[in-house]
Amino acid sequence: MPTDGACARYRMLDPQGLLALIADLQDVRALLGGAPPSWQVREVGDGNLNLVFIVEGPDGSVCVKQALPYVRAAGSSWPMSLQRAFFETSYYRTVGPHVGALIPRIHHYDAGLYCTVMERLSPHIILRHGLIAGRRYPNVGRDIGEYVARACFFTSDLARPFERKMDELALFAGNKDLIRITVDLIFADPYRVSQRNRHTSPQLDQTAERFRGDGALKVAVARFGQKFLNDAQALIHGDLHSGSVMVTEADSRVIDPEFAFYGPIGFDLGAFLGNLLLSWYAQPGHATVNDDRSAYRDWILEQARIFWQTFRQRFLALWAENARGDAFPATMFGTPGDAAALDAARSAFLDSLFADMLGFGACKMIRRILGFAHVADFESIQDAARRAGCEAGALAMAHTLLTQPARFHSIDDVISAVPRVLRHAGAGGSPPGT
Amino acid sequence: MPTDGACARYRMLDPQGLLALIADLQDVRALLGGAPPSWQVREVGDGNLNLVFIVEGPDGSVCVKQALPYVRAAGSSWPMSLQRAFFETSYYRTVGPHVGALIPRIHHYDAGLYCTVMERLSPHIILRHGLIAGRRYPNVGRDIGEYVARACFFTSDLARPFERKMDELALFAGNKDLIRITVDLIFADPYRVSQRNRHTSPQLDQTAERFRGDGALKVAVARFGQKFLNDAQALIHGDLHSGSVMVTEADSRVIDPEFAFYGPIGFDLGAFLGNLLLSWYAQPGHATVNDDRSAYRDWILEQARIFWQTFRQRFLALWAENARGDAFPATMFGTPGDAAALDAARSAFLDSLFADMLGFGACKMIRRILGFAHVADFESIQDAARRAGCEAGALAMAHTLLTQPARFHSIDDVISAVPRVLRHAGAGGSPPGT
Repeated sequence: MPTDGACARYRMLDPQGLLALIADLQDVRALLGGAPPSWQVREVGDGNLNLVFIVEGPDGSVCVKQALPYVRAAGSSWPMSLQRAFFETSYYRTVGPHVGALIPRIHHYDAGLYCTVMERLSPHIILRHGLIAGRRYPNVGRDIGEYVARACFFTSDLARPFERKMDELALFAGNKDLIRITVDLIFADPYRVSQRNRHTSPQLDQTAERFRGDGALKVAVARFGQKFLNDAQALIHGDLHSGSVMVTEADSRVIDPEFAFYGPIGFDLGAFLGNLLLSWYAQPGHATVNDDRSAYRDWILEQARIFWQTFRQRFLALWAENARGDAFPATMFGTPGDAAALDAARSAFLDSLFADMLGFGACKMIRRILGFAHVADFESIQDAARRAGCEAGALAMAHTLLTQPARFHSIDDVISAVPRVLRHAGAGGSPPGT
Repeated sequence: MPTDGACARYRMLDPQGLLALIADLQDVRALLGGAPPSWQVREVGDGNLNLVFIVEGPDGSVCVKQALPYVRAAGSSWPMSLQRAFFETSYYRTVGPHVGALIPRIHHYDAGLYCTVMERLSPHIILRHGLIAGRRYPNVGRDIGEYVARACFFTSDLARPFERKMDELALFAGNKDLIRITVDLIFADPYRVSQRNRHTSPQLDQTAERFRGDGALKVAVARFGQKFLNDAQALIHGDLHSGSVMVTEADSRVIDPEFAFYGPIGFDLGAFLGNLLLSWYAQPGHATVNDDRSAYRDWILEQARIFWQTFRQRFLALWAENARGDAFPATMFGTPGDAAALDAARSAFLDSLFADMLGFGACKMIRRILGFAHVADFESIQDAARRAGCEAGALAMAHTLLTQPARFHSIDDVISAVPRVLRHAGAGGSPPGT
């Protein structure tokens, strides 16, 4: 943990301060080439919480991310612990050995400035922007499925003596400021009157009100909220939506793990799946006369399928090969007669992660439409009526996932339901799927 | 946390050192009366891990418990962190405001000596000894049900902002040495060949071997083992068997919470229920010509019923009155129309605790018969064949609870099954309950 002395050293970086910082890092100097005066610095942050700089030298470039002491999107009135930068670098350090090149290379972490000097990902773009533009990334579903399987399996009790998890559980339990954001913005605000909420109005006024009064929906959300706080299955990224993935056609990288803590694996799975579904529902808002996006929508659902299937297969394969933990200890299951029971138990565990993925994913869909922080997938649709129509479909699907979970036993059940759930069953249409 | 400097001050207390310690505590001096030379000291520890002294003065007495740096039952070859004394006092401090007089009064904790000066409970005896003697404690089921409800509810996310839980979660995550004992001795050893295991031999040889080869049983146990490590529902006592409860006919006190950490509520519930059931199965071993213990057995099952019912009712009542936490936040459920859904969710949560109680309870029954640490309920039965008969019944019930959980929807289902499950279904008898 940073010491108080380190805190006192904090200042918001400007280009000059940034150059001074980097000039002291020999490896980064070598990577950039040339001398500091020849380096170009620009601030490119468009997120909610941080300053992000690109530093370019004659031979190469790096990215520098610095935590701000408040929520950027809300201004200095919403203070935010700088230590999230420490948790981000701790997360990278913990999962790094297991996920290979699926995260950026970390060059340096400055504990006093709460900033990380890391690989500049280029020509990568944010997946969410690619999805809005209708671009295809043939590997992304597979890559992120692989990523979640590896990052979560190897930090779970299935893979390691529990003592290591307990040490990290204690460390990441300090990430309370960011966990508070999730607890409030995802699991509570959209279901109560809050000044932080907004939605496309007046089109979704009734839906927002109906959601706030829907006891069955709220109870389902609250169960997932409780699970989020209780179920310390693995070190999770905590914010794994399509804005936390950078892509090229060949490469995928996971960024921005500052919400990391020990929580339910389904929360990471659901973040990615839920944001793919948001993208699916937003596509009509991005259709043009030349492209109605219907083929692209199919591609999105196919990525959802590949994402889940890759995760499931990889997680089971890792479990079969690396059962070195205290959960389901290998020493208890040494006889050949155990195989069938153990296979069934593993399959049941994956089924529970699947159910969690759908529930958490649905919570994350709703908060992006009725809560504080919205997503560009919808926000970039200028026509409010059109945007509301897209959003209503996503809300209907999320509502169905949360209140009728028994309808969804497989990813195919989800994929076949999505095109049929286009508006809320209670909004006057016939019930979806009937 | 104790500092290294404090560790260096540790020495095993002898009567002289103990008197010197207490002579410095003004409140305790006043309670004992007289001067140190007039105080009587005797060591009364019979547990596995600690020194326990009674200090008597002319006006009163206190109990002093000091952690030893090894497992007393195994000798110095099994070292054990002294810090468990710190976790014990931290547990008492945390639940103390909520459980009133159901724990002993704590006079002093010495961080360097890892010892606690506390109320001497007199004329209380260990509940387990009372159960062996066939004595009735009319309040014990109700008191311990009340205790678990209060201690667990008020440390759960239902009652408090999650930040407080995260702070304590981090603190108690340090209690790894004792959690390791539970992980190994309860959830693994009885299901694998281990030098630490023992059982009544040769009578239970085949049963022990059959349990080690029973895939369905082992998978059920492993699921509860995983839940034990993952499910941070509340601050749990961690060892709440009938040896951790001291009683008179009017009073009940919970002691020895050194295994405390944030875990599943059902683990505490199961410890108490499982040990009541062990006592039930042990009763024929304590029968005399004048008392076949059959009426006493009914009393034990009635206490099991009262225990669960009290827990359930109290937990629900506390939840209805104190929903100030981040799980199921009250601000989300403010409309009258929410009541039915919320009631159903609360009831479902209690059902999940009930299922956990049975599973964890069964795990705790098995480890006391096939694992390392046995219980006086059975150990005090001299005749091996008779003891083995009692133990076989308990194993059969535990096996049924773990492998046929769907049979048990209510405490009445358990109570009606117990007298019918007297030997293992696979041992040649007809299946229990058919």
